[in-house]
Amino acid sequence: MKASQFFISTLKEAPADAEVVSHQLMMRAGMIKRLGAGIYNYMPMGLRVIRKVEAIIRDEMNRAGAVELLMPVVQPAELWQETGRFDKMGPELMRVKDRHDRDFIIQPTSEEVVTDIARQELRSYKQLPKNFYHIQTKFRDERRPRFGIMRGREFTMKDAYSFDRDAAGAAKSYEQMFAAYKRIFDRFGLTYRAVAADTGAIGGDLSHEFQVIAQTGEDAIIYCPTSDYAANIELAEAVAPATPRGPATQALVKTPTPGKSTCADVAALLGLDLKQTVKSLVLATDELDERGVVVKTTVWLLLVRGDHDMNEVKVGKLDGLKNGFRFATVPEIEAHFGCKPGYLGPIGLLQPVKIVADRTVAQMSDFVCGANAWDHHYTGANWGRDLPEPDLVADIRNVVEGDPSPDGKGVLAIERGIEVGHVFYLGTKYSKAMNATFLDETGKPALMEMGCYGIGVTRILGAAIEQNHDARGIIWPASIAPFQVAICPIGYDRSAEVKAAADALHAELLALGVDAILDDRGERPGAMFADWELIGVPQRVVLSDRGLKEGLVEVQGRREAEASKLALAEVAAAVKARLGA
Amino acid sequence: MKASQFFISTLKEAPADAEVVSHQLMMRAGMIKRLGAGIYNYMPMGLRVIRKVEAIIRDEMNRAGAVELLMPVVQPAELWQETGRFDKMGPELMRVKDRHDRDFIIQPTSEEVVTDIARQELRSYKQLPKNFYHIQTKFRDERRPRFGIMRGREFTMKDAYSFDRDAAGAAKSYEQMFAAYKRIFDRFGLTYRAVAADTGAIGGDLSHEFQVIAQTGEDAIIYCPTSDYAANIELAEAVAPATPRGPATQALVKTPTPGKSTCADVAALLGLDLKQTVKSLVLATDELDERGVVVKTTVWLLLVRGDHDMNEVKVGKLDGLKNGFRFATVPEIEAHFGCKPGYLGPIGLLQPVKIVADRTVAQMSDFVCGANAWDHHYTGANWGRDLPEPDLVADIRNVVEGDPSPDGKGVLAIERGIEVGHVFYLGTKYSKAMNATFLDETGKPALMEMGCYGIGVTRILGAAIEQNHDARGIIWPASIAPFQVAICPIGYDRSAEVKAAADALHAELLALGVDAILDDRGERPGAMFADWELIGVPQRVVLSDRGLKEGLVEVQGRREAEASKLALAEVAAAVKARLGA
Repeated sequence: MKASQFFISTLKEAPADAEVVSHQLMMRAGMIKRLGAGIYNYMPMGLRVIRKVEAIIRDEMNRAGAVELLMPVVQPAELWQETGRFDKMGPELMRVKDRHDRDFIIQPTSEEVVTDIARQELRSYKQLPKNFYHIQTKFRDERRPRFGIMRGREFTMKDAYSFDRDAAGAAKSYEQMFAAYKRIFDRFGLTYRAVAADTGAIGGDLSHEFQVIAQTGEDAIIYCPTSDYAANIELAEAVAPATPRGPATQALVKTPTPGKSTCADVAALLGLDLKQTVKSLVLATDELDERGVVVKTTVWLLLVRGDHDMNEVKVGKLDGLKNGFRFATVPEIEAHFGCKPGYLGPIGLLQPVKIVADRTVAQMSDFVCGANAWDHHYTGANWGRDLPEPDLVADIRNVVEGDPSPDGKGVLAIERGIEVGHVFYLGTKYSKAMNATFLDETGKPALMEMGCYGIGVTRILGAAIEQNHDARGIIWPASIAPFQVAICPIGYDRSAEVKAAADALHAELLALGVDAILDDRGERPGAMFADWELIGVPQRVVLSDRGLKEGLVEVQGRREAEASKLALAEVAAAVKARLGA
Repeated sequence: MKASQFFISTLKEAPADAEVVSHQLMMRAGMIKRLGAGIYNYMPMGLRVIRKVEAIIRDEMNRAGAVELLMPVVQPAELWQETGRFDKMGPELMRVKDRHDRDFIIQPTSEEVVTDIARQELRSYKQLPKNFYHIQTKFRDERRPRFGIMRGREFTMKDAYSFDRDAAGAAKSYEQMFAAYKRIFDRFGLTYRAVAADTGAIGGDLSHEFQVIAQTGEDAIIYCPTSDYAANIELAEAVAPATPRGPATQALVKTPTPGKSTCADVAALLGLDLKQTVKSLVLATDELDERGVVVKTTVWLLLVRGDHDMNEVKVGKLDGLKNGFRFATVPEIEAHFGCKPGYLGPIGLLQPVKIVADRTVAQMSDFVCGANAWDHHYTGANWGRDLPEPDLVADIRNVVEGDPSPDGKGVLAIERGIEVGHVFYLGTKYSKAMNATFLDETGKPALMEMGCYGIGVTRILGAAIEQNHDARGIIWPASIAPFQVAICPIGYDRSAEVKAAADALHAELLALGVDAILDDRGERPGAMFADWELIGVPQRVVLSDRGLKEGLVEVQGRREAEASKLALAEVAAAVKARLGA
């Protein structure tokens, strides 16, 4: 490809609304162009990256035995009503009516459609397992689209769906996809982690997020540097402290803490370690009768150490809370604690409250907690002596750096990631809702076991850039770079020698299977180099009259500070080797 | 690819709602699967054809210098309001509101979005010409979707848009696209014609439809077998007869023709040639004042020969009619002709009527026409003697087989076609509406001259099948077949020799770049052969123990009645040669 036949459009400044570096650099490098909130044109330079990402995904999906098809963008609502998602999903599901006033949706995913295909096409156990995938435009009407194509409304996703005879088969399909995803992300050349994730109501441990590591990532990734443990923050287990609860050494003292309602403020006021304090969260659950009228309300007090954060996903799995909970109201709190929120604690309750202590809190002694009296805290509180043992001890907090790893093989570290893939065991959630059965060996119908496997194709671009950039621009891995090599001749239109050498090198690289672009635009060297650094092409070759007199050209990798002089005759092979191609 | 790793699903019977053969065969061959009215899943077998079609298009578009990008499916209404199409287009434009109640459309084409890109990105004459294209999902909410994916609602289209400095440049871009389209359709291996088409209000002669020839086509294609003239029925010119108007030889006679209001009935009753009769059509045009009130109505009588059909597109281009016309009302007709519709003619009018005679009619003598009296016609009517010369003589009819070719090089023939591509000079229609200007050499802004170029990717499949099928199924051209060769081993699971030979042949064909599928499903030979004939794979190779004993395999082209026996060692090269690959 010659630059003059392509379309290159770079900007010195990023638009003001580009919040993150990947968005800024994609706009500046002319990879995307905003059409509306969360809706982007993929410009020629960006589309080349998308196509390379898609090709790697397709290659590995096919290798793993998945079969590609293409399901529609606009889907009839009927199927979505069968699973209940038409009504259950919020406004992020884009609903549309046709000329006959019939309901349709613009697909955010395709579980319903693929399950409809499966229940018609996969009739016998002999046809299983089967894995169908497509790479198709998706739409999610995000309330606040942002970060360019990282959280856009229209995006491209690869979504695969496996169908198996039983849970064991589904686990095997899951493992195959997990292995394919590792190959895919390896080939992208990105640093990533496969992170165990929560499976929600389905249970089991078959859910992993593929997270591209980046300081700017929205997700916290928990991992153990001395083992292969990795989980997301929702799932990562905070194990109980190894040391047992210490004996009570202090008396319970009601201490004035005027205006200090947070643990940090109280610890500072009293000159105590924050780790000596306990914070309170009051929830409520309601029992309803068949008419939906509340017949009984239970108030819950959840306790975590002052320096810890509550984990709502973990709380949502507790017996008594897993069917839904809400924050307690101020009147409910006053009736049970005799105090307004701000100084609440587990001692001296007016009415029964279910007390859930985090594992760490259950092993604390001589701790500080709210005194259920305005502007007062207790110090020297001790389980068993000053208050009954908790009703429930559970892991209800986020892990923190230095916590022991649940596998016992070290301590946990935390880094930031961007979720770009997800493999998930679905069980019979969709096959049950849509009656997707097959006939087993005995001729009896059985529900198919499903898994789903997504990769955010367009999001990969953003994640790759968040991970790989510098002050000058993007640094693409060679496998997904829009071009692998930029040939930059100085004086292409002036010097017959430069032109001949550049054209010959271009042809030679293309013949070697290297995706090289020849910059024949006639830009000044500085502007030309800046463009290719901004665009992030992995290797640059500069040809000039002066160098060619000695038979030399300059090669510089995007991450290299200096160029190397190479013999013209050897440069094509050398560049190919540098790309690892 | 092995069949067991792919997904093959064939049907003996087509569903009842499949009206045309391509729809029936695509359903039976498992290429598409209906999801809703005009909305289809592209199943793995069909998707392979789509991908091959897309690859050919992409290859030739790139070769022609067009640059690929990707514009969104969901587009903000604002741009469509700028050109007025948001309001002007009917319900076939799918409109949708987002969570903030903002208007969007699901793209049927992308003129607005690409023009928006161009007006921002193409700022200088130095950046022109430029041609952007994408291959993307489109939606048109057809009132009556039918014929499977030939007239679906969701479909895939390649649409390209060229931007030039002036009309001469646009004509050059047009010619380049025209040439690229010819290469594309040649590579598809389909019989087609590039047919001149009407440019409507824009004028000029730069519009061609690419029509795949098929008896079942919806469009009439006019062409001259002895020259390269080809046009669609709207455009094809009916030239004036070479022979001048003959002298009047009959007297004008008012003849009773009770109950015979059609030309055919009158000719039969009177024992005359239908070519001696003239039929009448009465139209009206209204002049409005600034408030939209009709201030003047003109009544028009259009005359074509009894055996000819009126051409509304041609009528719509006439002076006085090109700003819109309607059928005249019965009271208007009675006031001007003194007769109800059925026996109308140009002789003896009560009020002024503009008379437009088709070129053929203007040269008739001794003709038959309505007498403006119930149940009566005139015979022996002659221009100049019995009625004034017409106000206007024009080409207002469809051509018929045998008409002289407008290029003077023969006579016209008619065949049926399916429109699968269209190249169109747009002029400044969109650039003017959206103020898409560039700075010319003098630094002054000028409107870009545009062209648009579409290919219906998914429709190609239907058209190819309408043109190429037989009683047994589809007959794909080798370039777009889902697989080029089906290797059919008999006893793959029983005979080690058959298995080894089939596996080796499969590997050999793949190494030669031949897209071969090995049918390892273990089907009976009859069922296996029927599947591949239905699916339409161009070449089939059958391996059996008996043949292999003699070192022979059977090769049969999809159009061949008999198989040929070939030496196993030579078959791969022979099959490749048969494919023309």
